Parts: sequence; C-alpha cells; structure tokens
Amino acid sequence: MADQTQTPPPWKDTKIVGSATPRIDAYERVSGSAVYPTDVVLPDMLYAAVLRCPHAHARVTRVDATRAEAMPGVRAVITDATPEAKIDWYQGREKPLSRLFDSECRYAGEEVAALAAETPYQAWDAARAITVDYEVLPHVVTEEDALKPGAPPVHGGGNRVGDVQVTERGNVAAGFAAADVVLEQTYRTPCEIHTTAEPHGSVARWEGNRLTVWDSTQGVFFIQSALAASLGLPIANVRVIGHYMGGGFGSKIELSKHTVIAALLARRTARPVKLVLSREETLVAVGNRPANAMTIKAGAKKDGTLTALHLKTVGSGGAYLGDGVGGVDWQVRDLYRCPNVRTEATDVFINAGPARPFRAPGHPQCAWALEQTMDGLAERLKMDPVELRLRNIPAVSQASEGQPPYSSTGLRECLTEGAAAFGWKEARARAKDAAPIRRGVGVAAGLWQGGGAWPPATVLVKLFADGSVNLNMGAADIGTGTKTVMAMVVAEELGVGLDQIQIEHADTATTQFTNPSGGSKTVPTEAPAVREAAIAVKRELLALAGEQLKLPVDQLSIVDGTIVSVADPAKKVAVRELGGLQRRGVVVGVGSRGPDPEGKVVCPFAAHFAEVEVNTQTGEVRLVRFLAAQDSGRVMNRLTYENQVFGGITMGTGLALTEERVMDRARTGRMVNANWHDYKIPTALDVPADQTCLPIDPHDSGCNSVGAKGLGEPATIPTAAAIANAVGHAIGVRLTDAPMTRKRVLEALHQRR
Amino acid sequence: MADQTQTPPPWKDTKIVGSATPRIDAYERVSGSAVYPTDVVLPDMLYAAVLRCPHAHARVTRVDATRAEAMPGVRAVITDATPEAKIDWYQGREKPLSRLFDSECRYAGEEVAALAAETPYQAWDAARAITVDYEVLPHVVTEEDALKPGAPPVHGGGNRVGDVQVTERGNVAAGFAAADVVLEQTYRTPCEIHTTAEPHGSVARWEGNRLTVWDSTQGVFFIQSALAASLGLPIANVRVIGHYMGGGFGSKIELSKHTVIAALLARRTARPVKLVLSREETLVAVGNRPANAMTIKAGAKKDGTLTALHLKTVGSGGAYLGDGVGGVDWQVRDLYRCPNVRTEATDVFINAGPARPFRAPGHPQCAWALEQTMDGLAERLKMDPVELRLRNIPAVSQASEGQPPYSSTGLRECLTEGAAAFGWKEARARAKDAAPIRRGVGVAAGLWQGGGAWPPATVLVKLFADGSVNLNMGAADIGTGTKTVMAMVVAEELGVGLDQIQIEHADTATTQFTNPSGGSKTVPTEAPAVREAAIAVKRELLALAGEQLKLPVDQLSIVDGTIVSVADPAKKVAVRELGGLQRRGVVVGVGSRGPDPEGKVVCPFAAHFAEVEVNTQTGEVRLVRFLAAQDSGRVMNRLTYENQVFGGITMGTGLALTEERVMDRARTGRMVNANWHDYKIPTALDVPADQTCLPIDPHDSGCNSVGAKGLGEPATIPTAAAIANAVGHAIGVRLTDAPMTRKRVLEALHQRR
Repeated sequence: MADQTQTPPPWKDTKIVGSATPRIDAYERVSGSAVYPTDVVLPDMLYAAVLRCPHAHARVTRVDATRAEAMPGVRAVITDATPEAKIDWYQGREKPLSRLFDSECRYAGEEVAALAAETPYQAWDAARAITVDYEVLPHVVTEEDALKPGAPPVHGGGNRVGDVQVTERGNVAAGFAAADVVLEQTYRTPCEIHTTAEPHGSVARWEGNRLTVWDSTQGVFFIQSALAASLGLPIANVRVIGHYMGGGFGSKIELSKHTVIAALLARRTARPVKLVLSREETLVAVGNRPANAMTIKAGAKKDGTLTALHLKTVGSGGAYLGDGVGGVDWQVRDLYRCPNVRTEATDVFINAGPARPFRAPGHPQCAWALEQTMDGLAERLKMDPVELRLRNIPAVSQASEGQPPYSSTGLRECLTEGAAAFGWKEARARAKDAAPIRRGVGVAAGLWQGGGAWPPATVLVKLFADGSVNLNMGAADIGTGTKTVMAMVVAEELGVGLDQIQIEHADTATTQFTNPSGGSKTVPTEAPAVREAAIAVKRELLALAGEQLKLPVDQLSIVDGTIVSVADPAKKVAVRELGGLQRRGVVVGVGSRGPDPEGKVVCPFAAHFAEVEVNTQTGEVRLVRFLAAQDSGRVMNRLTYENQVFGGITMGTGLALTEERVMDRARTGRMVNANWHDYKIPTALDVPADQTCLPIDPHDSGCNSVGAKGLGEPATIPTAAAIANAVGHAIGVRLTDAPMTRKRVLEALHQRR
Repeated sequence: MADQTQTPPPWKDTKIVGSATPRIDAYERVSGSAVYPTDVVLPDMLYAAVLRCPHAHARVTRVDATRAEAMPGVRAVITDATPEAKIDWYQGREKPLSRLFDSECRYAGEEVAALAAETPYQAWDAARAITVDYEVLPHVVTEEDALKPGAPPVHGGGNRVGDVQVTERGNVAAGFAAADVVLEQTYRTPCEIHTTAEPHGSVARWEGNRLTVWDSTQGVFFIQSALAASLGLPIANVRVIGHYMGGGFGSKIELSKHTVIAALLARRTARPVKLVLSREETLVAVGNRPANAMTIKAGAKKDGTLTALHLKTVGSGGAYLGDGVGGVDWQVRDLYRCPNVRTEATDVFINAGPARPFRAPGHPQCAWALEQTMDGLAERLKMDPVELRLRNIPAVSQASEGQPPYSSTGLRECLTEGAAAFGWKEARARAKDAAPIRRGVGVAAGLWQGGGAWPPATVLVKLFADGSVNLNMGAADIGTGTKTVMAMVVAEELGVGLDQIQIEHADTATTQFTNPSGGSKTVPTEAPAVREAAIAVKRELLALAGEQLKLPVDQLSIVDGTIVSVADPAKKVAVRELGGLQRRGVVVGVGSRGPDPEGKVVCPFAAHFAEVEVNTQTGEVRLVRFLAAQDSGRVMNRLTYENQVFGGITMGTGLALTEERVMDRARTGRMVNANWHDYKIPTALDVPADQTCLPIDPHDSGCNSVGAKGLGEPATIPTAAAIANAVGHAIGVRLTDAPMTRKRVLEALHQRR
C-alpha cells in the first residue's frame, strides 16, 4: 500500500488530460446496458406507490387503508400510524426525527401514505383506494401573499423564516451619495423545477438488519448517514449504491422521503421494494429553484466605477426546509469591485413543494438582476456594457473574510477574449433589423462562489499484474463525465490506456468517503486525489523496476506501459513483466485531496454573449448565436467540458425564455403545469445552432495539483441575463421578469409605445 | 488514510477474540436472504447447458448444432468451431491457451459444446439435441492399468506424468539395517469427490468490453486473472464477485470451463447468462481427491525410535492437469523425527475427470498409510501407540530447507492432553466386547504443511461518523466463518459491536488483492492485516481525541466506543462526538499481512482419538466417540473453530467408511455413482453423538500478530487413520484399503480366521 503525502508539482505538458475524449462509459450509456437505479430489478421485488395530499393545506383527520389492503397484490401499507415512519431531515446531525407522514399537509403533493404491491399498477390503484378525510385549511402559495398581514400561516405563527439576513460592508448611503448615476429596479425570476431526465427513485433490500439501497443520488454517503439516522441503524449497516444516474442538478443531494418509504416497506414485507416517482411527483415534491423577487439599487461614477450596491430579495423554500434566498446575494457582494454593499434577504414559508439546491443556487437569479442593472448603468453612462464591466474587475474576494485574493481571476479575460471571439463590437454596432424582426446582442458575467473543492476525498488506484487499473472513488458521476476525467488523470500519470481502466465508484460499502457531487466541486476535489494515488502507484512501480533492473529509481520513467532508463533506453522492463508486481498481484496507491490553498479563494468566472432575434409581432425570442467564455481553470476533457457548457446554456435559456412553475394561486394552490407538456424545458429547437465554448485557462497552479476549478454551475449563471440584455438591446426596453414569454415581450413592447 | 507499518505486539487478554460467537451473517444464511451465486437472477438472463462426452475416450469427428439452434428459446451455441472458445489453464502465466472444447475427449463428462436458452429446461433439452459423431478410443481409468505395458495412451506417448518425483535425506538402507523391527505394507485410498453443497456455477454479464462474473469461488482474484487471459481482456476489465458460496474444499480455487462458457455465451447473446452445473456434472468434471496407492516401509529401534521411512506412491490427476501425488509425501518427511527418509511418487494420466486440490491435498491419504504403519510398529514393539509417537516428536521441520524450527509445535500436547481428555489408557484397556460387537480405540496424528499464511493481503477498515465500521477485504468466506472472525478482530481493537460492522469482501473491483481462501491460510493471512488496519484507525481516533481533549495521545484508550483519559476517566469523548471524525465523514485504516517469521516454519498439528464398534456379523463400523486435539494456535472463535473441527471429522469419516468414486473400469470407463444416492457422503447418523474438540494453544507469538495458525485442513488429516486404527484394535486385523466398507471388514475378518 503506497501512500502519497507530498503535493505533486503542476503538470507542464499533458498527453491525455485536455484532449477531447469520449466518455469511457459511452457504449454502456447509449446501448442501454448501463444499469440506472430505475433499471434495477431484483428477484421477488415489490413496487411501491405513494398517496399524496391533493390540497395545498389540509389537516389529515382519518386514513383508512382497509380497502387498499384487500386489493390484489398489496403486501404492506404504511401511514402516519406506522410507528417507525420517521425521517431525518438533518443528515445525521443531532435533531429530532420528523414524521414521514405529517398529520398536517402543507402543500399539494405531500406524502400521506404509501404501500407496496406485486406490480406498479396494483400499487398505484391501491394507493388511490386509501380513504383519507381532510380538513382543508386556507393556503398561501406566493411570497407576496405569505408576507401580507393576516396571511394563512403555513406552520402556525408568521410565515417569515427567521430574521431578515443582512450583510453589509462600507456605507451604501454614502456610496449612493457619491454616485453620478443611481438606478433602482425590481426583477423577478420564476420557480423552476430540476426536471431530471431520470425520475427520483430507490430500490431497497434488507439482509438481516443490513440495508442496501440503489439510489439515484449525487452523493451516496449523504444518503447513507441520513437514512441510517432515519431508520435507527448504524451507518455501516446501510449501503447506498449510486453508479449511473440520470441528472440531479442539486435535487438528488439530500435524502428524500421516497427512499425511506422504500426501505420501510422492504422491511415490512421482507422483500426488495422499488419506488420510482412519476414525472408528476418529481415536479411537485422533490425540489425546485425558488422564485425570487430582487430589488437592486446601484450607483456608479461617470467613469463607470461602482460606488454602491444594495440588494433586497424575497424568496421561499416552500413549506419545509428549503432555502428560499440562499446564494442570491453572493454576486452582488463579490463579482464587481464595489466598496459599499448591503444585502437583505427575506425567506418565507408558502404552501408549495420544498426547494432544494439547484445548479448554482441563487446565482442565475442574482445575475438576472445584477447584470441587467449593469446594462442599465451602461446605457445611462453611454458606455459599452463590456467596457463598464471591465472597469470593475475585482482584485480580491471582497465578500470573503479578510478579503483574500483569488487563486486566479479570469473574469477580465472572459470578457475581453469572449468579446473578441464573439465579434461583440461589430455585432453590437450592426443594424440587422428587418421588421418585424429585431436583432440584439447582450453580455453578462458571473462568478460561482463554490467550485474550489469539498474535501475530504480518499481514492485508491489498484494496478493489476498486467498493468490494467481499477480506480476506486466515492464520487458519483452525475452525468458530467467524472469517470472519464478521472480515468484520464490515471492514464496521464501511468501511461495506461483508457480501455484498461475500470472504475468502482459511488458505493458506501466499497469506496471511501466523499462529499456529494455538487457545487461544481467534483473535479477539483477528486482529480488531485486521483493524481496523488496514481503517482503513489507509479513510485511503487519504479521502485520494483529499480530492483529488477538494478538501477536507481530517479533514473527511471514510465512510457506507454514500459519502465525505461532515462540514461539508457535499452534498459527497460514492461510493467507486466515486473516480478514484484506478479508476486503481489496488485500495487495499490492511496491519494487524498490536499488542503485548500492558504489565504486564497478559488472561484470560477464566466462571461456569456448572446445574439437574439425578437419578433415584435408575435413576441417570440429566438436565440441566434451564443458564446460562453469560461474560466474554470484547466480543461480536463475538452469534449465533456463543452458538454457541460452547452448544457448550462440550455438550462439558462429555460430560465430566460420558457420555464416557470405555475400555481393555481387563488383557488386550489396546486401546481397546474406539473408535467413535461406544460412545464416547458428547452428542446433542441430552442438552442442556437451557432454556439461556442471558449475556455479561458488562467494556468492556476495554486487552486490544486491539477489546476482545474469547477465548471458545472458557472456555465449556467450568466446565460439568462445575457439573453435578457440582448433582448433589451433588440427592442429597447428591459424585461424585468423571467421567463421572457411572448406575452411579456408583447407587454413590454406595448409599454414602450 | 492511516497506514500501519510496525507489527503490533501480541494480544495479552482478549474480550471478543476467542469467545464462542455466532456468525455475523447467520440470519442471512438461515433465512435464505443471503444471495449465493446460484441465487443471482438478472433481468433478461439466459440459462446455459453443456453437452458432455459420454465416452471415456473418443475423437469428436462432427458436431452438428443445426437442430439445437432451431429449438425453442435457444439463443446461441458454441462448439469447437467457435474461434474464441479458449481457456487459460495456467492462471495468467505465459502459456498457450487451450481449446475449451477439445476434438479429443479424454474422460466421460468432458465438455463438447454449450448453449444458452431462455430457460434451463430449454437449454438442457437443446444440448441433448446437438448431434455429435464420436470415434470411440480405448480407455484406461485406473493407475495400475495406466502403467501396464501397452496401455491405451491418454495423451499419446506413455501415461506417466514426468519422472518419478524423489526426495531423500540420510540413507534409508542404512536406516533399515540399524532397525530392530521393519514393516512394509501397501495401503490404498479411494478417489473422493469434493461434493460441495452448492454446485459450481457462474453468472456472467457484459457492459461493453467489461465483464462481471458472479462465481462460486474460493478466490476471486485467481478467477479474474485466468478469465481475463482466457478472454483476452485487461485484468481490470473483469470483475469477479464471490460473496456467499456453499463450499469449495479446494475445487473452487481455479478457473473452470463453465465460467468461460457463461462469459462467452453472454458476449454472443449480449445478455446475462447463468450456468450452474448439475449435481452429476460436479461429480465428474470439477475435481476430486486422487486415489493413491502407498507402499510404506518403516524401521524402528526397540525403544520406538524411527530409523528409516520409505514411501512409494502412485496417483493420478485424471486426464488433465491435476496433481495425482501432490502432498502425499509430506508427513512421511516431516511429522516424526527420522534421520533416513526416501519418497518416490509416480503421477499418471487416466481417462477420468481432473483432480483438484482437496482439503489438505495428499495428507489424509498419507496419514492413512503412515499412521497405520505407526500402529503396526507399536504392536510389534508392544508399545502403546501414543507412547510410540511421543518417542518421535520432531524438534525442527526436517523436510524444509535448512531444517528450521517450527514457530510452535503442539504435537506432543495434542497427543498427551488429547489422550488424557479422551481417557485413552482406560479405553484402550477396557474390554467391552459383547459378541457380535467388538469395540476398539485408535489414535492418529497429523501435520499440515501449509497453514502459515499466503500473503500478500491488504485490507481497509473504514470507521463512519457514528463509530460503525466497514471492513474491506479481498478474501472469500468459504463457509468457515472468516467474516465473523475478522469482525471479531475489528471489535477487539476498536470496541465496536459486531452488529455495527459491515463487511465488503471477495470482489475484485472493490477489494484489494488477496490469494484464494485455501490451504488453511485465510485466518493467518487476513487476521493480522485486519488487526493492523484497525489499529491504524484507533491511532487516528486517539489523535483526534487528543486534539479535542487537549491530552497527549499516549494517555488515551478506547473503551466501548468512548475515548477515555487513562489518568482521569472523567476526561472522555465518545467516538461519535469527535469533531474531526464528523468533519471527515470517515477514518480509513490500511493494514497488510506482515512478513513470515524469519527462519521458522509455521505448521498446525493434530492428534485424533476414535472409539468404534465393529459388528463382526454385518461388517458395520459405528463411530462411538471421537476427540480431536488441534494445535492451530490461538482459537479466534470457539464456535466456528468447533464447526471446522467437527466438519473435518465428518469428512474424514467419509474417507474412512463411505466415500469412493466407482468407475466402470472394463466396459465404459464412466463413473457409475455420480449422484448423491450412490456416492455416499456421511450424514448426521454417521457422526458420533459424543465428539469433542480440544484446542491446544501453544501461545505462538512468532507465527503472526494474532497467534493463529490454520485449522481447516489439519482437522481432517488424521481422522480416517484414527478410525482405521480403532477398527484394527477392535477386530485384530488391519484394513489397508479405504473406505472400510462392510464388505472389506467382513473380508478382513474372514482373512483373520
């Protein structure tokens, strides 16, 4: 067992890392042989279904499962009367357990009971046969309504969640007084749903008092500890297996009720139980990006220098523990140099499904408000929007304690190189309007407050007698290509072909602890650990070769599976011919993520450029051209890097143009578009044919040993704002509320006239 | 990641280790929830069947699968015409691949073709529908026949496998000349079949060019590398999962054809394929203990001192690679002090299924001959058989190079303490004969040449935030309780309850390399590694506690999950309240088996005592009482220790009384009792109600850090010989051939008269 303790020096030239490499599991993914949790079928398996409250707010006065229990194939029913029906919302932290089925339901879609039957159809039919008496209570489903005096209380008492959260530096009043121009405007972003391609689901199987769960999750270890606490089990007795999963975007980081339900029904029936939520259930019950109202006031000097920023935001995490305002303030506090900043955030309860972290929580909302404000200032100052932003590039992380520098800051290069590659000046200047179509271009920048790393991470690299490799890591590959990138790191260090690398990952029983794949932290957390482990193996191989060749280790290097004397290339031995390796069977290397750089903050940056056509007769916005300049440090895999960026653009386009949870505010309080027909996510037709990914690599040798920062989240932060600014440029009027539907565009045009 | 480099001192007092602890997986085993490879069911899985040659020796002139391919449910057929149908018999060593289906079949039961179909019944029916033309060749199925001039050649040329294997020390002629008494006699033991409760079987599933196999095996890593070589894959691309398995006894150490067949059919059909052999197939095709003829000549002085031993043995590994004489010589060379020893072993090919290692290869056979010879000498010298053996206790391992000492030698104590506990003298003296029943008692001793250890072994111990533990080890638990013993070692060091320990094991993708569980080497190999890993975790926990309590680490100890100051017990912190542990999620410890003791040989010893009743009218031998005194070092788990010993006695009873492969020598050359009705393994009624396990612990601090030597094999070595000596004592005539069937007993009685 070889352990690596010193941080290796940064790579100079790389052979594999950085190239455009197809996913190592591409065949499995496209052929259908990859087993996702929803594909897991176990002998003797039952299927579960959940009965959900149809009311936005109601007291459950009676649950009668007699009829359901007698229906064909039904094997067990659990309700609020089931003593063990509890859930740990606090991920194992010392808090009391909540009831799994509350006697008061606080949103339409909340769980009331569940059952297991021989087939999914029997389960769904039987769930509908459970008789429930409800006392319907008044509801409130918007933040504005929730804050009105006399609003129906979601939890008893007022609907505010805690105090207003305030941050402040400098003196905003003085800042506004010193400004030559001050703007104030309220912006709104809608509640969005994660809409993962694979629905949320779990399969649970017990062996004695040991539980195995196949879960569609971003982090098996988080699910493991929360599930253990929910069920009163030792953590080691719960095994959570992740493997393939079809998208999470933050909604699959925490434990969900359906996983506990599957586990409880499996224990009751002593048979494996599968519970996969329906598309409708995933739209109402397992997370969303909170709607935010953001009033932003900004002051600037004539030369464009910001003097003050003041943000007030209101948001709702729904009826339960979601954070309605998390992350919304960060870019106001940190993206641009500004001495005087104040933020005020108000989180409220409403009768709606719980929010969950959603790709760059708070950030795209804030960019929507801040970046349109920046364009507003540029307009008032008669400056180019890119130029205005360049006037305010920060030197340090102003929102971090002690204002430390960033390990690297590619914001300026994102703006300048992005503008050059996009042809910003020319596009902005040229008039291409051909009535009724108006064309415009817009820019927006962004910073992601995460993207450094989320240690600890411990990985193993196991090299077999023929030189092939097994990589053992705890992290999930949530569709972003993590497995491929990590295999490339191993291949880079050990000269092993990618087809000779097998990966064991995301399994609490077989891999070491890692935090969930989220926060754009997977590559910066895992890749340095993988590199260390591979180097540990390499050192061991060189030592074995040194013994065999009777040469000092420092005169040896590995080239394509052969260890060669640097001085005399005729002296060499293939890895698979190392006697010491044959005798041992394997060489194992251990690696872990080193510490964060001292006194520095690691953040990725981005600048997005959009060109749009707006049909002034129909209100339709068509995205013509898009360029994303991303500083996420080193490009690990050019192909999956672009995948991430184009996916981010697509998701940002949804926020800009199509996505919105629509609630029946007055009458039922229910979500009325809880399906993929009425909840509009962008399709291939909504994405511009001409989109460009422009990596900006600041050669960050300080962030970690591979020089990569996070990418997943920064790639979607400024997108919607850039499109909004392009629309504003096209039609000369600003749309403050997302999404920019045809109706809103036509209303804005009408307002201008 | 904590690594342990120094060998820890031996245990003084233990709390958990040594106690009688039920298996940690007992519930799973008895409830049926444990998933054995034969229980694995995968979606879309096909079932395979093998067509086997009905002739003992035949050339295959035509295989026509046309009719089989057209039968319902058949999805693929492979024959000798299938180019990729190859197998690596050499476990990855650089040898040419053999054909999976040879055009010349050398035993009745050899594989000719295989196919996969939707159900097992369709597969079996279709296999029978494959048309094969055979040119039948003359056969030879006994060693004697095989060595006759003009015997049919099994492989062309003569039937001898290599030269006669000779070992010699001293001068046997001089030894016999110096003897006061010389005996010579030929003994015979039959060919026995492993008869594992679970048949041999594999399930194979491909994902792209990566193969996963669930296999009933004693060692996943051996199967992995041989399978990779057979299929031309990188080792890392083959995953072999062991987990539960229902007995191997040596027959599941090496790769078998059925595993390759399952993998090939799964690749051809792009569906998972299961191939579980029928009971009949396991009796003819996957291994046996070779029959041995052993001529032994022994000389002794009047005082009982041995002066010379000369062993000539002939055996057959069958038609292929099995070793017909392996291990037969060792006890003659090493159990008793003797200056002049010569052994000659002749291995021959016969037209029968291949032999494989079988619990203590060669040793029970040799004990059958050697220990009856010792009793013969005692009779001639008018000495007590125990006394004679005590005169010849060795001081060193005479058969090992340089004659190094044993790390411990409990042979004398096994004999003396065993005799005392059995009431040897009284039982030997008392006459309890009541015609037609004769009663007798016998003793036999044994040494197992293995049982030290078979490194390398690397294990991980992962302690979670609540103090519960996951143990990661490569070793299979072949039914001997390995998992339980290893959990006890973890519990001993970390004070964790056994119900809080989860084990991940025997999976090439998720655990580190370990050699197969065989040779009685699993506990001595794995337990020291597990102990080291647990100590590494403990050291890390104490360090975290030291930081938190602001106390030096050397003043802290772990008691029942709490870290306490030795000086001031009021200063303490529960493991689960360690802030550092909560932040990290887990603490991981790595351990590996340290080196073997320098200049010493590690061997277990045993002495067995049997009391029998022989019915002189029917020839029936009834085992009345049995005592096994075992020096296997420290008793790790008193319960599974006894399980092992009683299992060993039962198996030895089979050799003594019931088990024998019967071949139709003259006509067909087929095994005629290839089923569990006609091949007689002992049942509960054949085992004495009064059986005792007497552990002899020599407090061996040199063998390894836990003081345990191997147990599985020594527990069955002297059993049959002890029963034979008891029968000889009862009826006054010696049976030279095992098993001692009624017919043979009656013949011996007849001879005496």
